[in-house]
Amino acid sequence: MSKQIQLNAFEMAGAMHNSHGLWKHPQSKRHLHYNDLSYWTDLAKLLERGKFDALFFADVAGVYDVYQDSKEPAIRDGLQFPLNDPAMIISAMASVTTDLSFAVTVSTTYEHPFSHARRFSTLDHLTKGRIAWNIVTSYLPNAARNYGLKNMVKHDERYERADEFLQVVYQLWEGSWEDGAVIADVERGILVDPDKVHPINHEGQYYQVEGPHMTDPSLQRTPVIYQAGTSVRGKEFAATHAECVFIGGPTNEKIREHIKDIKARAERHGRNPEHIKFYTFLNVIVAETNEEAEAKYETYQKLWSAEAAKAQYGGSSGYDLSQYTDLDGYFEYKHTEHGQSRAASLTKDAPKKLTVREVLNRFETINRDHVIVGNPQEVADAIQFFFEDTEIDGFNLAHFVTPQDLQEFIDLVVPELQARGLYKKDYTEGTFREKIFGNGQRLLPSGHPGSKYRRTYTTKL
Amino acid sequence: MSKQIQLNAFEMAGAMHNSHGLWKHPQSKRHLHYNDLSYWTDLAKLLERGKFDALFFADVAGVYDVYQDSKEPAIRDGLQFPLNDPAMIISAMASVTTDLSFAVTVSTTYEHPFSHARRFSTLDHLTKGRIAWNIVTSYLPNAARNYGLKNMVKHDERYERADEFLQVVYQLWEGSWEDGAVIADVERGILVDPDKVHPINHEGQYYQVEGPHMTDPSLQRTPVIYQAGTSVRGKEFAATHAECVFIGGPTNEKIREHIKDIKARAERHGRNPEHIKFYTFLNVIVAETNEEAEAKYETYQKLWSAEAAKAQYGGSSGYDLSQYTDLDGYFEYKHTEHGQSRAASLTKDAPKKLTVREVLNRFETINRDHVIVGNPQEVADAIQFFFEDTEIDGFNLAHFVTPQDLQEFIDLVVPELQARGLYKKDYTEGTFREKIFGNGQRLLPSGHPGSKYRRTYTTKL
Repeated sequence: MSKQIQLNAFEMAGAMHNSHGLWKHPQSKRHLHYNDLSYWTDLAKLLERGKFDALFFADVAGVYDVYQDSKEPAIRDGLQFPLNDPAMIISAMASVTTDLSFAVTVSTTYEHPFSHARRFSTLDHLTKGRIAWNIVTSYLPNAARNYGLKNMVKHDERYERADEFLQVVYQLWEGSWEDGAVIADVERGILVDPDKVHPINHEGQYYQVEGPHMTDPSLQRTPVIYQAGTSVRGKEFAATHAECVFIGGPTNEKIREHIKDIKARAERHGRNPEHIKFYTFLNVIVAETNEEAEAKYETYQKLWSAEAAKAQYGGSSGYDLSQYTDLDGYFEYKHTEHGQSRAASLTKDAPKKLTVREVLNRFETINRDHVIVGNPQEVADAIQFFFEDTEIDGFNLAHFVTPQDLQEFIDLVVPELQARGLYKKDYTEGTFREKIFGNGQRLLPSGHPGSKYRRTYTTKL
Repeated sequence: MSKQIQLNAFEMAGAMHNSHGLWKHPQSKRHLHYNDLSYWTDLAKLLERGKFDALFFADVAGVYDVYQDSKEPAIRDGLQFPLNDPAMIISAMASVTTDLSFAVTVSTTYEHPFSHARRFSTLDHLTKGRIAWNIVTSYLPNAARNYGLKNMVKHDERYERADEFLQVVYQLWEGSWEDGAVIADVERGILVDPDKVHPINHEGQYYQVEGPHMTDPSLQRTPVIYQAGTSVRGKEFAATHAECVFIGGPTNEKIREHIKDIKARAERHGRNPEHIKFYTFLNVIVAETNEEAEAKYETYQKLWSAEAAKAQYGGSSGYDLSQYTDLDGYFEYKHTEHGQSRAASLTKDAPKKLTVREVLNRFETINRDHVIVGNPQEVADAIQFFFEDTEIDGFNLAHFVTPQDLQEFIDLVVPELQARGLYKKDYTEGTFREKIFGNGQRLLPSGHPGSKYRRTYTTKL
């Protein structure tokens, strides 16, 4: 069977994700119901009906506060705010599904690895191995100040800390418990064999953790590891640790280059490049006819909020677009103290120098370059071309109006992709790692840095 | 209506709680199924059938390692180990119940208040106000070393930190968001009114937190606050913050004294003493006849593990009973570096000096003083006497074999208590705080220190 598209629903556990202003649509349910358990359990059932691989929860730990040097634009438009803790919702969604997996974002900058390892082992147990962890190092200045830091930890230092965080959790997940430690031997009165449970005695620069891990090994031990990032340091991190990489790029060629680059880096780290799957962003507006789809796009466009889009760009890039007032002058990056490596993406691939007006205009409308609009056949054609031309493995599917857009995608596009053999008709058995990498791939593969912490011997506690 | 008994199931999210050795019982399901979601959703449904007020999750963040200066006795008997994170299980249990509440233990020593506030607001949203937080400061040396501390933070300093932790979360829960901030004004394009969302700008000794809180106010804003502890510092803390206090005592008189003392302290802090409910430990072995109940006790006794009981005492008190080898000598406390204030409880109320043998013997058997054994009428008689004589408000009901013991309690004892008017036949409406304190008590009452952070005015962000 030829390669099939993997699909995640790109989500956030709050009033709004990146569909700036679209909460105003009469069919938008999320801003009214994101605090209701039934909203999430209904969504999980819908996604499982659509054979989605996973629900992917992005997350942030603060308010977007770079644009206009203020929190106000983000709050007014509900930009990723208010925002619940996504990990708290998983067990309810798991209880109404059997195959849908859940990728949950947690920052290595603000959580402690001992607590984090226990939380994700618990979730992997409860879901029978349907958990992934999306690693972020966090980019919002407000988030830093919510956790006692005067300023953002510098980008590269955040990755240093993340590397050590991973060393700690790998030791807890892979090394602390041998297989078969829970023996429940009634005759001898031994529930857990102490010879098979080990402290980790980690003494590092950022963390000192004795162990042992609090839970016995879950089906996957280490949850499937997601990571996004196209900075050089981010790519190195992804090539070292990630099993699923979320990448972007202004052209299909650029996406292919990113994939090739990360695979080459992974190989240099001793990993099999086939042990990494690549995902990119996808957004679709579909209707029975092209005309209806275009009309829907127009409706969405009218509700779009350029202010929220600029606030989102400010937080994620570190550049405050409100500082650029000479509209006819050429756009030059003005570094702020919070400058991020992603900033260059606005102009880097433009064929000519852009004026401030041209740059700001990009925020005024929904960018048609990033949205596929059409009837089911047109949408499937475009997805198929995108999929085949980029050599990507799958997509994080965004949606403007939830759950309506996801429902229409499932009712109209999924059958068309299935008919073309591009999308599964049924889930495969097993854990999330087995579902996406194939039978037998329950644990981290050899070559992955986490796998080297797995024990093959027994030492005394 | 006269006062009715409030009931919590006393639980832990792992293989075993305090029923030392009882996992060996053929009807014990928990050590085989604590990693299964259905175990917990079935338990929640069972407790709601029994009209339990709450499922109370105790928790620890490490292995009991004081006894024999080793982790081995605790691991071998599965003493509160392995242990999942209880917060992760709540949403699934909430999705199959409508009235059962959930009290979840979180330590102020090892978690960050910003993350914690967001987690519990999320849970309070998802459960529609059925969440309580049991505050602990953690007593296990291994837990300290799991979080980078060479030694336990000293008892009183743990409470200093806890006091500041509470200042932070009160500001986030009560002060950061005014009521009605989410306006979803489609005409003006305003989802959240920024004038009603406030940073907290906390600058303290242990924490610096800018805010605002990440979630809009849940029904209870601050979850119902539980606390245990009978040390002087613990009582002061409870009298200041707690709405439900878990106390113990060797005699009914001692329990009455604790209640009186904490109520008097609360009054000195400007609180209404009626705004605190008191709970104590209860354990019941019931069967249709007294003979069957006694036979069951004998069965349980045969499976009891004195080693696990001593390991549990070691971790919670700081005293290592393996150091006492002169069995005929008088028992004197030998302070270790981890000495805890609860240690005195072993001998304090004994009528005469005890030998080491006498003290150790207390661990060899299930203490009949702490267990009510009998047929439904005998059990109800004993509970009624205990309830009326101590002037307590309710009980944390332990259980030796789960879920069997809880099921039998619900089938045999609950109807008897209901027939006597001592126990509710139906839940009352509303949030957990309303269910236990009465109609209209959705929020922290005035006089509670958290309530003073509530805003009655609007200031600019």
